[in-house]
Amino acid sequence: MAHDGFFEQLHNACGGQLTVGDDINPRYLRDFLNQREGRALAVVRPRTTTEVAAIVRLCHNTQTPVVPQGGNTGYRAGATPDDSGHAVVLSLENMNAVRDINSAASSITVEAGCILANVQRVAEEAGLFFSLQLGAAGSCHIGGNLATNAGGLNVLRYGSARELCLGVEAVLPSGEVMNLLSSLRKDNTGYDLKNLLIGSEGTLGVITAATLKLFPRLVDRATAYAIVPDVKAALKVLDLCQKITGGHVESFELMPEILFKLLQKNMPDVPLPFSVLPPLAVLVEVAAEESASLSLQEALAEALACGLITDAALASSEAQRQQFWAVRELSPEATKREGSWSKLDVSLPADNLADFIDAVNHLIVDDVAGQYIVAFGHAGDGNLHLSLRPRGQAPEKNPALVAMLEEQILDAVYERGGSFSAEHGIGQTKLAAMKRYKNTTALTAMRAIKKALDPNNIMNPGKMIDVTSN
Amino acid sequence: MAHDGFFEQLHNACGGQLTVGDDINPRYLRDFLNQREGRALAVVRPRTTTEVAAIVRLCHNTQTPVVPQGGNTGYRAGATPDDSGHAVVLSLENMNAVRDINSAASSITVEAGCILANVQRVAEEAGLFFSLQLGAAGSCHIGGNLATNAGGLNVLRYGSARELCLGVEAVLPSGEVMNLLSSLRKDNTGYDLKNLLIGSEGTLGVITAATLKLFPRLVDRATAYAIVPDVKAALKVLDLCQKITGGHVESFELMPEILFKLLQKNMPDVPLPFSVLPPLAVLVEVAAEESASLSLQEALAEALACGLITDAALASSEAQRQQFWAVRELSPEATKREGSWSKLDVSLPADNLADFIDAVNHLIVDDVAGQYIVAFGHAGDGNLHLSLRPRGQAPEKNPALVAMLEEQILDAVYERGGSFSAEHGIGQTKLAAMKRYKNTTALTAMRAIKKALDPNNIMNPGKMIDVTSN
Repeated sequence: MAHDGFFEQLHNACGGQLTVGDDINPRYLRDFLNQREGRALAVVRPRTTTEVAAIVRLCHNTQTPVVPQGGNTGYRAGATPDDSGHAVVLSLENMNAVRDINSAASSITVEAGCILANVQRVAEEAGLFFSLQLGAAGSCHIGGNLATNAGGLNVLRYGSARELCLGVEAVLPSGEVMNLLSSLRKDNTGYDLKNLLIGSEGTLGVITAATLKLFPRLVDRATAYAIVPDVKAALKVLDLCQKITGGHVESFELMPEILFKLLQKNMPDVPLPFSVLPPLAVLVEVAAEESASLSLQEALAEALACGLITDAALASSEAQRQQFWAVRELSPEATKREGSWSKLDVSLPADNLADFIDAVNHLIVDDVAGQYIVAFGHAGDGNLHLSLRPRGQAPEKNPALVAMLEEQILDAVYERGGSFSAEHGIGQTKLAAMKRYKNTTALTAMRAIKKALDPNNIMNPGKMIDVTSN
Repeated sequence: MAHDGFFEQLHNACGGQLTVGDDINPRYLRDFLNQREGRALAVVRPRTTTEVAAIVRLCHNTQTPVVPQGGNTGYRAGATPDDSGHAVVLSLENMNAVRDINSAASSITVEAGCILANVQRVAEEAGLFFSLQLGAAGSCHIGGNLATNAGGLNVLRYGSARELCLGVEAVLPSGEVMNLLSSLRKDNTGYDLKNLLIGSEGTLGVITAATLKLFPRLVDRATAYAIVPDVKAALKVLDLCQKITGGHVESFELMPEILFKLLQKNMPDVPLPFSVLPPLAVLVEVAAEESASLSLQEALAEALACGLITDAALASSEAQRQQFWAVRELSPEATKREGSWSKLDVSLPADNLADFIDAVNHLIVDDVAGQYIVAFGHAGDGNLHLSLRPRGQAPEKNPALVAMLEEQILDAVYERGGSFSAEHGIGQTKLAAMKRYKNTTALTAMRAIKKALDPNNIMNPGKMIDVTSN
């Protein structure tokens, strides 16, 4: 706990980059979706790894909780302090340098506070491509992307944040710096501490920098909407596109009719790809050195011939391509304008995806007539986002009904070998699901590791893992 | 330690599948390269995960060391017991079932004792492809491949064993079963225990089964040898091939003249791709749905036009393709027939690879005239294998010279941001290098994790991590 002289030491540790008490901007204390609001002793904004280490060492010695915070765009309140007011919020926003870009090794080394869009831009300026892409790209930080193993739109081809990270630098809960920065593709020298830190949501240390994998920049892109009769057909369309394009599908997004309707209703200026709204469509993008359009056209023609799709619209210009993407990317905003929703983020094995969506639709019909459930998203990698608004009302109007529906949906996921959190993580708001669905031996092992690396439970306490329960 | 009744309990735990005392076949007690030979209380060969759990629980309760063993083909004596005679060797050879192959999810679930070649075959019979490929494929086990994060010939395109594994089932040092089998592409629910187990060389638990990623089977393959002036040019040839083939390069192996000479001398029946031996060549293979030959030809023609290669030979038939591969795959055997060698397995960032090889050649000329150093292998992913035979003599004739050379080479690797063990791991024989080169904070964290999960240090003690030192 904070003691006499603590604030002076904290001030020195972070080179004066701190705010305390009522001067703290509330944005550091509230999560992106306004689910949680906490309090803090101080917000510190270190500029170097050495400063981060000094801060964590001080907190370690004084048993002061540390809440690492990136762009604060997460959906699980994983970077928000609790309301005890005992924690120090450690914002990485002042650590935003690109340390190095190495074209020969196809890698870039950036500090944790780098905004994703900046990393994308620097890579592009070097003629390369950083594949991580998600809605919050303009404000989320690489550090947060790694701490939560962010997914997004390009996972199908390039993998999640984990697969894109070659090495990390981190400050462990003891305050020691662990420099595992590296552009190596192969290194079998010890436990995989890099991947242990990635996705640990700041509970095992603070990621301060990372070396990321870059890819060749593919300028030839082809983008289409295709109307599919059902989810099974959609997945066959994906297989066909992969086969015909030589594995060059970059995105494959499932878009049900309700999303188009919500766009039409709440954002009528957004041009839709169809005049008559289809029950189900997919957005597919192919990227290649050349012939992207030709191979996508060929795939869609074959899909049409096989009855896997009933119609398709191929973007005929870059402007139209951007319109197509706007439909996908604005659909969460159009949904939000309808009012509040409860959100789930699940993944299923490919062979159970269609059956799962059937089961969810069955729930709609049988159990709670008239509510909305929107299942959409990254079908190409088995990840569906679900938005729930039972009886067309805000979830807070029907908390018991929402809880029941969520449990039924997550049970259906569990029974089909799926995950109750595909890409959004656990944070504060999925701890109950962790207890219900996670393998108990895994939970025990997680607690043992947490205790070994952070015996005083100072690193982002109350997130991801309940250290006390069994 | 073993107590009265221990053997009876062990007998019951493994359903009678055990051998003790002088009946133990020495092959369980010796490593593949004959570097270490140990002793054991017993060799057990469980047939189920439940039996593995019962064995480990008994060993946990009696503080008996457990040495998990797969196909016993590793290069670091990681599956060989020490000479105390206190350990139980746990062979996974009786757990060799394919539990499930799921074409829709492109995954296969196999037990740890499955031989790699069998997994490849079962995948192929289902029209799919399991990409892990290495010299020991006919005898190594998937469990061992995962425990050591095996690499091999196809890492460039598909990744190491780690990237190919979607989920594991393992018995932890407590004897608890942790079932994380899954074919999901995305799952952000807790610490990455799967990757912690992968590459931990049996020191954190026994992997008993795994779900592996399968790929489309590409039948159109094109394979060529190209003569390159130097390593820098070789890497540019790789870039060019990737660009022109749309990223379809599957293997890219560096072959120096000395390998061809050793083949010519020690295996004269093996037909070589060149009549005049080149100072340096690369073996490149492209695999695609179609047009593999065309695109490789185009790439090689452009490389020739740019002066990146001086000549090339494209395999004109499947028989010739196999001949080309035989040259690569028999070159370790041809090297071995020369006598014994000291072996290193290092990786470098792509931009330092050429400079590193220059430095090694410099060592040859300046410091120890007349010795052989052969640097070859997976240049496409930065991984070089080095074989040392100073003054053309067996390493045991010049132990001090070999030690000095190895240290100079590994120091040169370290200074260039490389790894002293790219794919072969640590086992017993690289513990000194671990101490010299590994980040000390990482070593401390590894010890903490090892102690947390295995407080009595029963799981494969003396491998990968020295739990006592600092």
